[in-house]
Amino acid sequence: MPFHSYRLPNGLQIIGETSPAARSVAVGFFVKTGARDETAVEAGVSHFLEHMMFKGTARRTAEQVNLDFDRIGASNNASTSEENTVYYAAVLPEYLPQVVDVLADMLRPSLRQDDFDTEKKVILEEIKLYDDQPDSVMADHARRLYYKSHPLGNSVLGTLESVGALTRDQMYAYFSRRYAANNIVVSAAGNFDWQQFVDLVTKACSEWNTDVVGRDNRTEWAGEPGFHLLTRETVQQQYALFVGGGPPADSNMRYAADVLALAVGDYTGSRLYWELVDPGHAESADFGYAENDGSGAIFVSLTCEPEGTAENLERVEKILKEVQRNGITDEEFQQAKNKILSRIVRRSERPMGRMMALASMWTYTGEYRDVDTEVARFDAVTQADIRAYLDAYPIDRNMVVSLGPLKELNGVTGTAVPSLG
Amino acid sequence: MPFHSYRLPNGLQIIGETSPAARSVAVGFFVKTGARDETAVEAGVSHFLEHMMFKGTARRTAEQVNLDFDRIGASNNASTSEENTVYYAAVLPEYLPQVVDVLADMLRPSLRQDDFDTEKKVILEEIKLYDDQPDSVMADHARRLYYKSHPLGNSVLGTLESVGALTRDQMYAYFSRRYAANNIVVSAAGNFDWQQFVDLVTKACSEWNTDVVGRDNRTEWAGEPGFHLLTRETVQQQYALFVGGGPPADSNMRYAADVLALAVGDYTGSRLYWELVDPGHAESADFGYAENDGSGAIFVSLTCEPEGTAENLERVEKILKEVQRNGITDEEFQQAKNKILSRIVRRSERPMGRMMALASMWTYTGEYRDVDTEVARFDAVTQADIRAYLDAYPIDRNMVVSLGPLKELNGVTGTAVPSLG
Repeated sequence: MPFHSYRLPNGLQIIGETSPAARSVAVGFFVKTGARDETAVEAGVSHFLEHMMFKGTARRTAEQVNLDFDRIGASNNASTSEENTVYYAAVLPEYLPQVVDVLADMLRPSLRQDDFDTEKKVILEEIKLYDDQPDSVMADHARRLYYKSHPLGNSVLGTLESVGALTRDQMYAYFSRRYAANNIVVSAAGNFDWQQFVDLVTKACSEWNTDVVGRDNRTEWAGEPGFHLLTRETVQQQYALFVGGGPPADSNMRYAADVLALAVGDYTGSRLYWELVDPGHAESADFGYAENDGSGAIFVSLTCEPEGTAENLERVEKILKEVQRNGITDEEFQQAKNKILSRIVRRSERPMGRMMALASMWTYTGEYRDVDTEVARFDAVTQADIRAYLDAYPIDRNMVVSLGPLKELNGVTGTAVPSLG
Repeated sequence: MPFHSYRLPNGLQIIGETSPAARSVAVGFFVKTGARDETAVEAGVSHFLEHMMFKGTARRTAEQVNLDFDRIGASNNASTSEENTVYYAAVLPEYLPQVVDVLADMLRPSLRQDDFDTEKKVILEEIKLYDDQPDSVMADHARRLYYKSHPLGNSVLGTLESVGALTRDQMYAYFSRRYAANNIVVSAAGNFDWQQFVDLVTKACSEWNTDVVGRDNRTEWAGEPGFHLLTRETVQQQYALFVGGGPPADSNMRYAADVLALAVGDYTGSRLYWELVDPGHAESADFGYAENDGSGAIFVSLTCEPEGTAENLERVEKILKEVQRNGITDEEFQQAKNKILSRIVRRSERPMGRMMALASMWTYTGEYRDVDTEVARFDAVTQADIRAYLDAYPIDRNMVVSLGPLKELNGVTGTAVPSLG
């Protein structure tokens, strides 16, 4: 599967991996911007702007954007995270020209005032919808408590207040600043012709502006350990989240981080699974590694009956301390590696999965690795690497946040988290 | 991609589609049993039993079942619906023997009393966890209100009472009745050798019992129109579900049903999308077709601000009446078809997706269709078929259930739905 890359004079980066055996092609525009790139008064603008991209351009009404995807049977979507905003679609190979045209066009939106006003209502509803989900509420609170003033603590959705007060001009200023050509990677994978793809992207995007782009505050962050209890009496289960420091996305330690995460807390067949979920103490107990630009994190998420929470938090802490001291067993180590190898290979079988992986690699590390190379990197992780990881990023010094009906836990009185209403 | 099928003397059906270009293989055991096959005192047993399959066999402890999946890096899982219980895994090709061995072995579980007691607690927690999700609570209530005593109204999870009272012997009786060899289809897709696969399944399953299996009450069902309001004051958004009759899974009308569903209510680019979601009236408004054995259903699910609910319900009803009278436009028709063709092709690119599709086709229709044939079936749908569909299954005579904070709506006083607590 040959890899190609080409940079337009305006800085737009094009990458692609062709696979003639595939029956479809996936294309994505990755904009290196998200909640962490917002100022306080802009909170939620990245996500709101993602919605506005579907509301029409100089060449297309909102309806036409949508119809042009539908006519070619595109499976298209978009997503916004703390640091990336992504627009993507998969189509049958013959529709490559149309899909590049509509994706590129929608990224130069009109941002009309009346569309802005209408869509704001949708976003405010979405914020309330998330507030109905206990795990989302907890995650947003935990993020702010852990990161404090670091921009990785910013909420992707923003708040009713910040979104409510946002103006169309503030959004336009953010757009101009962050959607410059040199802050965007265009990625493709599957059945397509590379030169045709470059020509199509060149035609669609060569007039896009170049700007001084970048990201403030990429310093590595480790939040303070401590325990926070959030009380919402209408919730029935108790939710808890451990958060601690981890390596940034471009660190070589990310391979060890992934192996360790699977060994300690994959949703099945891990240390946490056997000690908490399998015996019925908890509904779920997962350990994960979140790679972020400049500063990663590890987390354990736990769901259980309120009355078992104190004991379960102790169980998790005991396991983390034990792993911190003695590492993982050779059997756990080998199993975790096998799982990762299998997942990488399977994800690569679909153009959409491969296109996303390519763009993510390029955005975070500026390099291309084929599937075999990525497999080899994980295969090269040793138990000594796991030890080195634990020494660099101890997993037993976490901030713990719990949300649920409990009004007191471990001597801490809960802070009420009322519904937005 | 050649298709193969073989039936063991005990009735176990083996099917497979080989694809040498794939980098992995997916294997699944499809048991034709689910909530609809349970008696009232057994409510929830299919799902509980699915959990128990991971708890050990005569040859393996629970830990060994799990470790044997982990050792080969399997991505494995299981799921239970109203009418199917499915166990599946995807692995690299060299691990085919191991994955067949462990999947087959786990389907002959020990069902030990102490494991049963422990797992019961997990299930009871899971029931409470779902009760924290407003859309799940509404769906379960809507199912019972619509289907009344028809077994398709049964809840997959069961209730705190039914699961709490269930005994190990009741579960064993259900297992013996429903997990007979002649009630199971074993499916594989991807990179594997058919003869090796048959030999492996034969070795693992040829001793399995044969029984008189079947399914009671496959009569087609259409519930009574009407409006039901469920009040839970702690929920912030208002949720609503329209449910009406649809063709069974083995009906030729299912192709028209899928095209119509996408045209009227695909999550983007559909009649409902343009009239409710795009203008910001609702957070979501989707139309779907659920194929079931003997009796299908259509549904519209809506989420919005409580104060806009009455108006949104009217908007949905107006659209359904309009489509019922005049059908869909040629443009909507063509777009929906293009979407379906693209989705089928893309789903087929992954062994896991293809394995699931094969087993589903075989279970519901007893036939095999390759990707090109399935594409041709959808491509053959005409506007006349859509009209015939609407005449056979009117989409404007639905039962409507709404759940949220509203205490009164359209003159109906809400029935309180307290949390399980």
